[in-house]
Amino acid sequence: MATQAAFAVRFPQLARPGRGQGQGQPAARVAVRGGRAPAAAARGVRCRAGGLIEPDGGRLVELVAPEKGGRRAALRREAAALPHRLRLGRVDTEWLHVLSEGWASPLRGFMRETEFLQALHFNAVRGGDGSLVNMSVPIVLALDDAQRRAIQADGATAVALVDAHDRPVAVLSDIEIYKHNKEERIARTWGTTARGLPYVEEAITNAGDWLIGGDLEVIEPIKYNDGLDQYRLSPAQLREEFARRNADAVFAFQLRNPVHNGHALLMTDTRRRLLEMGYKNPVLLLHPLGGFTKADDVPLSVRMKQHEKVLEEGVLNPESTVVAIFPSPMHYAGPTEVQWHAKARINAGANFYIVGRDPAGMGHPTEKRDLYDADHGKKVLSMAPGLERLNILPFKVAAYDTKHNKMNFFDPSRKEDFLFISGTKMRSLAKNRESPPDGFMCPGGWKVLVEYYDSLAPPEGSSKLREAVAA
Amino acid sequence: MATQAAFAVRFPQLARPGRGQGQGQPAARVAVRGGRAPAAAARGVRCRAGGLIEPDGGRLVELVAPEKGGRRAALRREAAALPHRLRLGRVDTEWLHVLSEGWASPLRGFMRETEFLQALHFNAVRGGDGSLVNMSVPIVLALDDAQRRAIQADGATAVALVDAHDRPVAVLSDIEIYKHNKEERIARTWGTTARGLPYVEEAITNAGDWLIGGDLEVIEPIKYNDGLDQYRLSPAQLREEFARRNADAVFAFQLRNPVHNGHALLMTDTRRRLLEMGYKNPVLLLHPLGGFTKADDVPLSVRMKQHEKVLEEGVLNPESTVVAIFPSPMHYAGPTEVQWHAKARINAGANFYIVGRDPAGMGHPTEKRDLYDADHGKKVLSMAPGLERLNILPFKVAAYDTKHNKMNFFDPSRKEDFLFISGTKMRSLAKNRESPPDGFMCPGGWKVLVEYYDSLAPPEGSSKLREAVAA
Repeated sequence: MATQAAFAVRFPQLARPGRGQGQGQPAARVAVRGGRAPAAAARGVRCRAGGLIEPDGGRLVELVAPEKGGRRAALRREAAALPHRLRLGRVDTEWLHVLSEGWASPLRGFMRETEFLQALHFNAVRGGDGSLVNMSVPIVLALDDAQRRAIQADGATAVALVDAHDRPVAVLSDIEIYKHNKEERIARTWGTTARGLPYVEEAITNAGDWLIGGDLEVIEPIKYNDGLDQYRLSPAQLREEFARRNADAVFAFQLRNPVHNGHALLMTDTRRRLLEMGYKNPVLLLHPLGGFTKADDVPLSVRMKQHEKVLEEGVLNPESTVVAIFPSPMHYAGPTEVQWHAKARINAGANFYIVGRDPAGMGHPTEKRDLYDADHGKKVLSMAPGLERLNILPFKVAAYDTKHNKMNFFDPSRKEDFLFISGTKMRSLAKNRESPPDGFMCPGGWKVLVEYYDSLAPPEGSSKLREAVAA
Repeated sequence: MATQAAFAVRFPQLARPGRGQGQGQPAARVAVRGGRAPAAAARGVRCRAGGLIEPDGGRLVELVAPEKGGRRAALRREAAALPHRLRLGRVDTEWLHVLSEGWASPLRGFMRETEFLQALHFNAVRGGDGSLVNMSVPIVLALDDAQRRAIQADGATAVALVDAHDRPVAVLSDIEIYKHNKEERIARTWGTTARGLPYVEEAITNAGDWLIGGDLEVIEPIKYNDGLDQYRLSPAQLREEFARRNADAVFAFQLRNPVHNGHALLMTDTRRRLLEMGYKNPVLLLHPLGGFTKADDVPLSVRMKQHEKVLEEGVLNPESTVVAIFPSPMHYAGPTEVQWHAKARINAGANFYIVGRDPAGMGHPTEKRDLYDADHGKKVLSMAPGLERLNILPFKVAAYDTKHNKMNFFDPSRKEDFLFISGTKMRSLAKNRESPPDGFMCPGGWKVLVEYYDSLAPPEGSSKLREAVAA
């Protein structure tokens, strides 16, 4: 069968190391370990690293008004004076964050119709020079019919975007309003219109029937004040950090689930392979997704505590690992979404992307099957327009090796030795405070998970107490 | 609003006439008038016209075994000896026809999974050199689970494709079988999964749950023996004809509805504009779609009779018009399908494509609205990957001008003078044997239409007779 052959042909050889990274000093410390971003990165200094992959469109888009020069105050006044205000919901704010830092470069604001249509039909948009950049999910802002009529009635060309407390966050200018055909958007993004898609229920079903695009200018960096902002490094900050460490290859790993030693094995092995290929200092971008996730996913705060443990306990080498939060919300749109996950990491400086089995997949919301073919994500990613520069590294499957009592790459010649611990199984173990097999997860990381499930389901005693009271 | 600006920017200038067309003699006769294809074209001589647009992939694919040299007989024996046979349905045969003549160049057979996924996600597939060619609709062949198991059980690498009478038509070799996720295919192709999509009901709902791709070799040219085969010119034959006429521009007009004088006005005006641009001999490819259409569309045989009248009565100039049948079935997939309609015409030598309002659109099958935004087809077509070489000519709206008693381009400054005659209105007039306004359609064309509706609904007398019998 030709599929595998065609897939292998797509990137006949991985990129060879580029020229040297210049005169930077050796990597000396951990970027975010202990929860503090490096000072240089925190200042948002522009990337100087000539050796990192170019952002899409050639230049990293940054839409936050600069701190100096009075632009922030002026923009705040402008926003306050605008007669039309659109209130951002949670997911809207996450997209605004994404846009403001250039994860979606070269997009400079919420999509206008031409960009929306290109994303839906081609998973790619044409840049100013006619070349295609990948853009597989619509990044759009909805408004209702009354809002549309009010804006169009007085011919407004800009609107203020405000937070839940009505405070101005940004200005959207040179606006364009167009129809929000939800059915078509959903069908083309997810390949189904079945009810129960988490992102659809969260952000589309009750959204307005119109979309508004335009050029975005954000008053100040988006903060969540949840104790995790120090992990939210922008693409510019990440590029700065990779340059500081003299990375000559950056390999990104996206995940939204608890990290276990199988992941760690894969990441360590990837670094080894890159070293074998001749790279001198491959750096891992360990990049959990931080935006909207479905209700039964493990929350970001828990996952970040786990990530801290993985580094503290030395499961991953802090010298060659940068842990940061990817601020995007999650679509669970499988092959369509994995392109977005990969493309955004190019903008953060990654030239290698590790793709797993069934990336961004989930169960079909109404049928007893997976929504996507488990291999389609990898295949679609390898063929996607605008991602030609990115090296796709297919995930090697790791499982618990009962012969060696540790996580190991699956060896089909002795498959009876391997134990696959599904997410469901892992959750069930943690919920029941059972221990996982030795070496499945670092002890600190497991403890974090057990404590989380404890907080959801009160210990047995209190439950019994309640039963007694109820009886 | 930026949409229109972006659309105009896409093709900032139309292609200028190329170098001369060589030493060909002046166009002297009508290609298909009177129902006979020119002898040279009928022989399938390969295109020699250096000035015509290149086929996708650089070379026109032709998959019919050559007449000479014994290949047809050998292939027929090969097919007869193959243990696995798949019977082609009506729509399958139409696609086989399309593939065999290279309308879908560079495809060389029914899609394998990599091509299928690229068509669904990107509306484009990557050629051997890495460049993108447009390919927006899946061209696939389904089989059921029993067929799949039988083929895979003995490791077959080729299957025979047979007609309704079990006669071998083609061989599909180097086969690949993969899952047919109908829901995802439908959602990504139509942007809806609502029941009642004509192509879905005809060709997908009851099709097998697996798809088979491979390299196709067809035993002999596909014929329908319906009295219209002489209009079924292949891309190679059309290219030969355009070269013979010394065409220095070919503009294609796709339609599946009865042709009226508004269409004729548009085509005549397009030729005038091309002459003004400096082309010496722009030729129209008037190219009604001949494959599957929905039940309430006017049948091909009626439409072809109408087209003959349009030429006979001089509404269009036979010297600069080639009428031929496009053998593809109709998806009614709006912006997705219009790309296919345009792309296929590149392979036939057209470098200009006239796009109408809501091309390949239809009413939503379950809601009271159009399935697609009427402007999306034009917009998507203008941005589609792989169609950069094609000049898109947006349709100018024509309507009945009651002041001048003829079809005219709509003039918004005196909109009260214009009468829009919808397809529904036209059908209702023809059904009731009423006359349309003077100049709406040529008399012969109108007569053909009235006769068709007469044949569907018997004259009043016989209907009354039946009622009397029933009473």
